[in-house]
Formats: sequence, structure tokens, C-alpha cells
Amino acid sequence: MTGHGPVETPVFMPVGTQATVKALSNDEVKACGAEIILGNAYHLYLRPGLDIIGKAGGLHKFMGWDRPILTDSGGYQVFSLATLRKLSNEGAEFSSHIDGSKHFLTPEKAMDIQGVLGSDIMMTLDECVHYPAARDYVEQSLKLTTNWAKRSKAYLEKRQRSGGWKQLLFGIVQGSTYLDLRKEAVEELLAIGFDGYAIGGVSVGEPRNLIYEIAGYTAELLPRDKPRYLMGVGTPPDILEAIALGVDMFDCVVPTRNGRNGQAFTAAGDLQLRNAEFKEDFRPIDETCGCLACRNHSRAYIRHLFNTEELLGLRLVSLHNICFYVTLIGQARKAIEEDRFLDFKNAFVNGYNNKKEKA
Amino acid sequence: MTGHGPVETPVFMPVGTQATVKALSNDEVKACGAEIILGNAYHLYLRPGLDIIGKAGGLHKFMGWDRPILTDSGGYQVFSLATLRKLSNEGAEFSSHIDGSKHFLTPEKAMDIQGVLGSDIMMTLDECVHYPAARDYVEQSLKLTTNWAKRSKAYLEKRQRSGGWKQLLFGIVQGSTYLDLRKEAVEELLAIGFDGYAIGGVSVGEPRNLIYEIAGYTAELLPRDKPRYLMGVGTPPDILEAIALGVDMFDCVVPTRNGRNGQAFTAAGDLQLRNAEFKEDFRPIDETCGCLACRNHSRAYIRHLFNTEELLGLRLVSLHNICFYVTLIGQARKAIEEDRFLDFKNAFVNGYNNKKEKA
Repeated sequence: MTGHGPVETPVFMPVGTQATVKALSNDEVKACGAEIILGNAYHLYLRPGLDIIGKAGGLHKFMGWDRPILTDSGGYQVFSLATLRKLSNEGAEFSSHIDGSKHFLTPEKAMDIQGVLGSDIMMTLDECVHYPAARDYVEQSLKLTTNWAKRSKAYLEKRQRSGGWKQLLFGIVQGSTYLDLRKEAVEELLAIGFDGYAIGGVSVGEPRNLIYEIAGYTAELLPRDKPRYLMGVGTPPDILEAIALGVDMFDCVVPTRNGRNGQAFTAAGDLQLRNAEFKEDFRPIDETCGCLACRNHSRAYIRHLFNTEELLGLRLVSLHNICFYVTLIGQARKAIEEDRFLDFKNAFVNGYNNKKEKA
Repeated sequence: MTGHGPVETPVFMPVGTQATVKALSNDEVKACGAEIILGNAYHLYLRPGLDIIGKAGGLHKFMGWDRPILTDSGGYQVFSLATLRKLSNEGAEFSSHIDGSKHFLTPEKAMDIQGVLGSDIMMTLDECVHYPAARDYVEQSLKLTTNWAKRSKAYLEKRQRSGGWKQLLFGIVQGSTYLDLRKEAVEELLAIGFDGYAIGGVSVGEPRNLIYEIAGYTAELLPRDKPRYLMGVGTPPDILEAIALGVDMFDCVVPTRNGRNGQAFTAAGDLQLRNAEFKEDFRPIDETCGCLACRNHSRAYIRHLFNTEELLGLRLVSLHNICFYVTLIGQARKAIEEDRFLDFKNAFVNGYNNKKEKA
């Protein structure tokens, strides 16, 4: 239960980096059945800036989205997109990727930013370590992340005592590929106590089998009565495999980013709609899909739109993909309720991969 | 009355150059109240090509639009966008602006192309002369255009006798800025006889007062019981002025092209939403507008979307502008029915221009 209503899990959160799920309207995202979206604190802090979002009355009002929002802390972008200038126990000094301006992000400031955004679920500031990473670097980094998690919780409690903030706070398990460090991180976060736990630092360059190994091992250690959120993952089979491993929440740019490149997801594998093979294919992307793109338009038409660089092409495939992800995870939820999830997952993964191999 | 239903005039036709009104879905264009759109034969002939549109069952089915469509003949693009290689009485040889491939367009081929597209209203092939043009060139050109108009009508009648084609055909009045040549052109076209008459070769570089002079002079000569269509015009005041001069039909890329650049039209003048003045302006584009953009979003939000190059920005302003144009012309229609059009037009034009002068 969040400040903007309940969220049933497992759930997929479309990514609305800059206060918009790329190429889509709120109505379209809602029509797909999305219950919650993700916003990026780093991007929104830089543009339009907290001043403007604050005056608008928070991110929900600024962008016109009335369902729950989860915001990340900005840590991931500071360590990947911005130029990191100085990292200390206190926080991270970085230069904006847009104009080079200098900023200093601390765990407390990350909470303040998310407080102004008014998200329903906030994330603690952490250091996201990329793959591969040396063990001693990861050990040091984990100390920092745990310390920041403690400070985040303490700061939130102080703000909640002084009134006004009712947001949930999730901690993030780091530890790279070192399972014993993941275990240590879980224990330390559990000792602090959060409303939910994210598995971070996966899908950062490591092979797929390692993603599953880390996600499965970590999810198993986390309490079953709190949401377990695997950050930034993944393809449709990845998501079902992770649900089987105990994960409840997902976000990923794949449906929109790949959609903008013409890649459409279906249960029978994905289609690259720019390809000449679809020139005279007058079937919808997916006969079984009820989205606007599949109800009204053919593969041949969408290929023409990409071929002529018409924006409606990006829109239609982004929309279809978001609907596909949200529908898939809804089917997974139903299969779990009906105690037939593993059959559902195996059938889907086989169907998806068979087509890919045939193609 | 067209093959896809009636069209009430005066009417504004959103431009769907490449089988899509740029950035918008059919549902959005319909929700604005658009009754008919325009398709460009030249673009569609080159991409996706007639073969594909033919197999799809025509342009309506290919793009999923079930209301009337008017197609131009391709002449305008051959004389402006393509490289014209050879112009003769027989037709125009040109190289595609996309891949340089050579094509030959005749009046009969322009009819065949529009026949495959299956538009409800077809246009005759003409030579669109740009401004300024020497009188003797325009005289020669007009002979060509009249000859092509005759051949178009003869070819259509032959096709209609052999069955299958039920499309309307409009002739196009050329003659540049020479009013006596415009008059001659009208007389020749009336002798041939068309379902409607377009005023072409305006808004091709000449000053605004000349546009009005030519449009008014020509519209006056054309029969009142047939649609009079002013091609490619214009701004909101241009359209109302032209209605006052007797024009019934309009198409223009301004609402979508300018919308993609952040220019939004309102009755109080236009807004350049990229401007910093809208950074903290939480009002809708237009308080009186019921479009999706104005119902759900603020100027500050839309400015942020343009500032961060988010596609939703182009979408929202394109949508608002199409709704604005269609609504404006609907208001004009009502004012005509209620015999108060001139008051309506004068009030609008004054309100629109006053704001512009203040800004």
C-alpha cells in the first residue's frame, strides 16, 4: 500500500526517466494496466529542477500521473552517466552530464530530493559497482553503501517524526558477484530495517547466468513479507525467471528503448519491425494482444513508419511493448495465485526461445 | 458526400503526408473532430510504394483511417522536393529526393496512383509555379496545366465507365499572381467540369496581401455550389480571412510542423513553449481548450518535455494545434450558419493579433 494506492506484485514498473514514459502519454501507460512507474531523481533534479517540481506540487502533479511512483536515489546515474569527481564517506561530488555543473549528492540530500518529488517509494543512495569488480573494491564500497543506508533511514525517521513525509523507503543490496558479500549486505540492511529491499548492481555487464545466480541467492535471503525488487532487469524471460527466484518488482528501459528501435516483443519471440520481411506482412504485431497498435495497425504499416522516420512508429511499438510487459507480469501473478507458475514460466520461456532459434 | 461519408464545409484537413498525421494517432486526430485528412501521392508512391498499399487494400486500410481522404496529385512535390529532370506536354520526369531513382509522372499516372490509394477526392496533376514568375512562363505553364486537367478528367471518365472508381476529382486553378490568367484558368476548368476546384500556387513565397487578393479574386469566380479549396494555407487568421473570401476547404502543415517546434496556437495568439517564460507557468496551453494536452498538462511541463527532447512534447503540441484548427473552423461553420461570421472573424483576428503585438 502506497500513498497513491496499492500495488499488487509481481509488478513491472515502466521507466519514466524525465517525468514521461518515453514517447507515451499517461493515458496510454494506464490503459496498458501499469500500476506504478519509476522516476529518476538524478535527471529530474537536473531538469526541470526541484524548484519547478516543488512549485508544481510534486512529480505526480507536474507530470499528471495519479498512480504510485517509485524514484531511484540518483546514485546509479552519478556513477554511470555523470562524471564522478570525488567520492567520500560524506557523499559523491559529480559534474552534470548536461552542462558540466558541479553538484554534491549525500544520502540525506537524496532523501530530500525524493521528498520534494513526492514519490511513494524512495530508494537509499548507494554505490552501484559495475562488472567486473575486484573483491577489495567491493568490500570498501559495501561499507559506504551500508553507512549511507543507515543515514538514509535515520534521516527519513527524523523527517517523518517532524511530520509530512509518508513515503516508503527501500534499501539496496549490493556486493557485486561475491555471494558472501551479498549475504553480509542483506544482514546489515535487515538490521536497519526497510519497507522493501532491492537487489542492485545486477545486469551491469555480467553474463546472464550470473544475473540469475545473484538474484536467486539474494532474493532467498530477503524476507518474504517485504517486496523484493530487482533493479533494471530485463527481457521477458529474465523477468519470469526472476519471479521464479522470488523477485516481486521490476523496472527496465528495454520495452521503450528497444521499442524506439523497432523491436517488438511477443510470446513467440521478438520481431525487428524495420526488417524487409515485414514489408507486406499485414498481420498485427501480435494477434493475441489488445493494445492500440495491435488492434489498429499492421506490421507492414509500422515498418513503413520506421522506414520513413515517422514518430507514430516509435509510439506504437513502445506502447505495444509496455502493454506486453505489464500483461505478461499480470499473467504471472494469476498463475502464482492459481499455483501453476512454474508451468506457465516454462511454457513461455520455451515458446519465446524456440522462435528466436528458428528465426 | 464522399465514399467515406459526408464532409461539412468549411473544413480543415490535417496533413498525413506519409500515411500518418505526424506524431499523432488516428484516434487523436478523430478525437479533435477532423472529418477528412490529406495524403501525399508523391510520398506514398515512393514509400511504401503502390504495390504495398494496393495489397493492403488502399490507403484507408493501410493506415487504419476510416474517414474521407483527399490526395494531392504529387505535382507540387515533383516541382519542389524532387529534382525535375524533364518537363514536357506528356508529363514530368523527376528523380526521387530519397534515392535519386528516376520516375515519369503523367496526368494519367497521377490518376492511377490516386486510384490505387483509393482516396475519396483526387486532384489533377498540375504545374505549381513559384513566386515570383514571369508572365510568359506562367502562360506556357497554364497551357500545360489545362491540358493535363482535360486528360485527367477524360481518363477518370474512362475508368469510371469501365467500373470500380467512384472518386471525386478536383481541378486546380493556377496562374500565379496574374489575375487575368487566373480568370482564364477558371473558365477553362469550368468548361471541363470538376467536382470541386482548388486554388493552387498560392502561399509559394508571395506577400500575404497577394495571397488574399488571389484567393479572393479566384474564389469569387468559382461556382458556389462546388467546394472551393485553398491549397496549403495557412495561419489561423489566414484561414478565417479566406473563409470570408469564399473558400471552403483548407490543408496546412503549420499546426503539426510548428507544433513539433513547440509553437502552440491559441485564440490569444501563439505561444513558443520552449521559451523560459513558461518555466513555472502551470496553466494549460489554453484554458478554454478540451484537448488531452490542455486537460492534463501545464505549459511548464510541456516546456520541460521540449527542453529534454522528450517525444511527448511534440505529441502534445501537435495534438493541441490540430484540435485548435479543427475547433476554430467548426466555430466558423457555426457562425456562418448563424449569419454572424464576419463578426466572429473580426473578433478572432483582432484578439489573435493584439496578443502578438503585445508579446
